Amino acid sequence: MRSKPDISLEGCTYSHVLEIISNKWTALAIYAMEEGEIRYGDMMRRIEGISQKMLTQTLKRLERDGIVKRKLTPSVPPITEYSLTPLGESLLPVMNALKMWANEHLDSVKHARTSYDNLKS
Amino acid sequence: MRSKPDISLEGCTYSHVLEIISNKWTALAIYAMEEGEIRYGDMMRRIEGISQKMLTQTLKRLERDGIVKRKLTPSVPPITEYSLTPLGESLLPVMNALKMWANEHLDSVKHARTSYDNLKS
Repeated sequence: MRSKPDISLEGCTYSHVLEIISNKWTALAIYAMEEGEIRYGDMMRRIEGISQKMLTQTLKRLERDGIVKRKLTPSVPPITEYSLTPLGESLLPVMNALKMWANEHLDSVKHARTSYDNLKS
Repeated sequence: MRSKPDISLEGCTYSHVLEIISNKWTALAIYAMEEGEIRYGDMMRRIEGISQKMLTQTLKRLERDGIVKRKLTPSVPPITEYSLTPLGESLLPVMNALKMWANEHLDSVKHARTSYDNLKS
């Protein structure tokens, strides 16, 4: 028997990474930049159901976290392009692993929930 | 230029998987079962800072999701042991990938935030 806890969140790293990726718009914005630099307007068109306010907020937060970089070309009209930084690119495999797990196993989770709820009711 | 959105959350799978793993106690409970079957009391001792109420809720939810199975031995006193189901085990690589990314890159995120905030203020 153990007398002291040995499982803890060192520096809460796990919570912090979830904080970055746990918003669905964040995930979609990152996927939209997967192939490289993209203009703001193109992102709006590519991401289903996102509002301008949400996209702006999401990109601002990702820029602050060092995941996304913004490039402003001062033409008329000005062009704003977004892309993943190397840090942002390092997140892609993790997010794709999450998505793959979900695609593969979510039916099992739903099935388990139904069985459990039927047993308990 | 694209005229139709092509990035969406098919069936919201991404949100659903995050729902499962995004609670920090969930993550810790799963890590506590990584090596196999474990008694309720041992889990309490191993996971830093968890309350009985939280552990019970977390395990119940994970059982409902089909991630954890519970084995009750009707001895005196009764023994309750928990372990990961095959579905639960399939989540481990994803969760470890998340943790590794966090351990490796979280300093960069914090650094980016500080720089961003200093620029904006």
